[in-house]
Amino acid sequence: MRKAGKSPTMKDVAREAGVALGTVSKVINGIPVGKSYRQKVEDAAARLGYSVNSYARGLRADKTHTVALILPGLDHTFFSALADSVCHELTLRGYRMVLATTQFDTDAEARCIQMVRQNKVDGIIGLTYAPDLAIGDDLPYVSIDRYISPSIPCVSSDNFSGGGMAAEKLLELGCKKPLFLRIGSEVIGETDKRGAGFVAACELRGADYTSQRFNDADGIEAIFDFLDRHIQGGRLEFDGIFCSTDRLVYYVLKHLKDRRVRVPEDVQLIGFDGTRQFFTEDYFCSTIVQPVRQMAATAVDILLSEDRSHTPALICLPVTYAPGGTTQEAVTTATGDMEWQVSI
Amino acid sequence: MRKAGKSPTMKDVAREAGVALGTVSKVINGIPVGKSYRQKVEDAAARLGYSVNSYARGLRADKTHTVALILPGLDHTFFSALADSVCHELTLRGYRMVLATTQFDTDAEARCIQMVRQNKVDGIIGLTYAPDLAIGDDLPYVSIDRYISPSIPCVSSDNFSGGGMAAEKLLELGCKKPLFLRIGSEVIGETDKRGAGFVAACELRGADYTSQRFNDADGIEAIFDFLDRHIQGGRLEFDGIFCSTDRLVYYVLKHLKDRRVRVPEDVQLIGFDGTRQFFTEDYFCSTIVQPVRQMAATAVDILLSEDRSHTPALICLPVTYAPGGTTQEAVTTATGDMEWQVSI
Repeated sequence: MRKAGKSPTMKDVAREAGVALGTVSKVINGIPVGKSYRQKVEDAAARLGYSVNSYARGLRADKTHTVALILPGLDHTFFSALADSVCHELTLRGYRMVLATTQFDTDAEARCIQMVRQNKVDGIIGLTYAPDLAIGDDLPYVSIDRYISPSIPCVSSDNFSGGGMAAEKLLELGCKKPLFLRIGSEVIGETDKRGAGFVAACELRGADYTSQRFNDADGIEAIFDFLDRHIQGGRLEFDGIFCSTDRLVYYVLKHLKDRRVRVPEDVQLIGFDGTRQFFTEDYFCSTIVQPVRQMAATAVDILLSEDRSHTPALICLPVTYAPGGTTQEAVTTATGDMEWQVSI
Repeated sequence: MRKAGKSPTMKDVAREAGVALGTVSKVINGIPVGKSYRQKVEDAAARLGYSVNSYARGLRADKTHTVALILPGLDHTFFSALADSVCHELTLRGYRMVLATTQFDTDAEARCIQMVRQNKVDGIIGLTYAPDLAIGDDLPYVSIDRYISPSIPCVSSDNFSGGGMAAEKLLELGCKKPLFLRIGSEVIGETDKRGAGFVAACELRGADYTSQRFNDADGIEAIFDFLDRHIQGGRLEFDGIFCSTDRLVYYVLKHLKDRRVRVPEDVQLIGFDGTRQFFTEDYFCSTIVQPVRQMAATAVDILLSEDRSHTPALICLPVTYAPGGTTQEAVTTATGDMEWQVSI
């Protein structure tokens, strides 16, 4: 029972009604919920004396129940999957999402943050590239994939473990000369730990590895030139490649096809992201899968949490390996025989 | 020169400053613009006497400079491309975008509309599936791909012409037995005109065509069963298939590969959407390309237009055909020879 003299909170109403906090939030914010849920919340609110005035207090406290998501754009499957999940998670909690896209323009990122602040939001989730982004301490902010400062929580995949997992898998599948290839932003971010994890695992296993990094400014041709320099007499020197993204696997596949290097017979490829073909069950390639839904839910939970005293600076969520046709896994056929899966 | 006695409008300021209306809107709404533009707008506002009070009038007029986009989700490349473009077009005009996703739940669509109204927006752009969606006349609304009522403008691709274009192309590329395959929602929408356009063009040319429609409830297996029933002695009866979406091409390609029917040698495939591989320059398949950017810009322009007296009920934007490896186009090689392009 609630102590007399203390104003009831939304949490009290949720406990009394036996429903989730999000359900109470929805009823208060006029978002339709199932009739029986609405009735439970309204009855509990009446019993506890959680009145219309409490609703009004909520409004006066300047809550907008709006969260801004800042992304480079939706023209990348990871970004659109993240936006989809963040939107879904916010809706479940009775919040709405403002989307601001920056087209990888770091000035635009600063402008976006300024704009969404002026337009009053309760918090920001940002995936940004500006090396020195001024956030300010007055507005809850959660960063995705980029560590900004100790006071700003960052949510990402466990990129380091994912890189290690890719190395272990290539070695397990028989690769003797594994290569790490990376192309991306010049700004250091969490995703750079993919290469670090790969290198650490290779060194631990004493593998004869190569690690090659390029920046976006170098252009994809730099990757093609590098591969061509390592093709001798029609044979690629490497028998396994861990690409920093599935998108890079796409480019590498196309180039190797031009050079008549076969995948996965001559070289096995593993990407990173977990991109699916047309959002079906099929992975585009063998890949380290990012837990996008969990990343979104975690970012939203941290952002909306009232108690931020124990918030970690960095939360890395577990990744998984999924075969997708660019590696040679042993598979069991319908007749019970083992065979090598080579189709893409 | 402005007439004396009449309060200056934002348009007057834009004309006086020699800048776009959107730039004035940004300055008024505190969204950063280039310094020289801000100076021009502020100087022009000062000359015309467009005062801080005018800004306040704008606020009192209850403009939120927020537009809601309602979509089934971002887990479809057309949806995420549309959301990306709508967000970009709104930002250019000094507006922000609230994204609400419905997961194809028609009840969720009605709830979304109610929610975004309660949260005060200046207008809604919706891609919905509910057959009888109550919109109301008080809030500007633009529908994408679904005609709702004469008073609600609908923006879509020219789906009918696109279907005709696919038929003409298959016939031109030598197909004698073209097939139209469709799987999608049970609710009739603009996209259903793709099949109608295909049929009309085939009849005009006296082609021996087949048209087969399935609903999502039938499942993709219905498509596979249909194809299997038309494979005799390892040969598919059809030599060209127009699929209602690129995603359907993906499934058909996979199934035909299982059945050892070769694409494009045995059967040529054309999809619809213009899906690109990892947002590169490469199309996933030969396809009718939707003008997504123009659709977004048109929807935003209509939504924000103050004069709606001449707004059409339906605006169909022109589509284009793009070869993408699933058809046999004659191509000119580097040596000037003509050859058939067969690679995917």
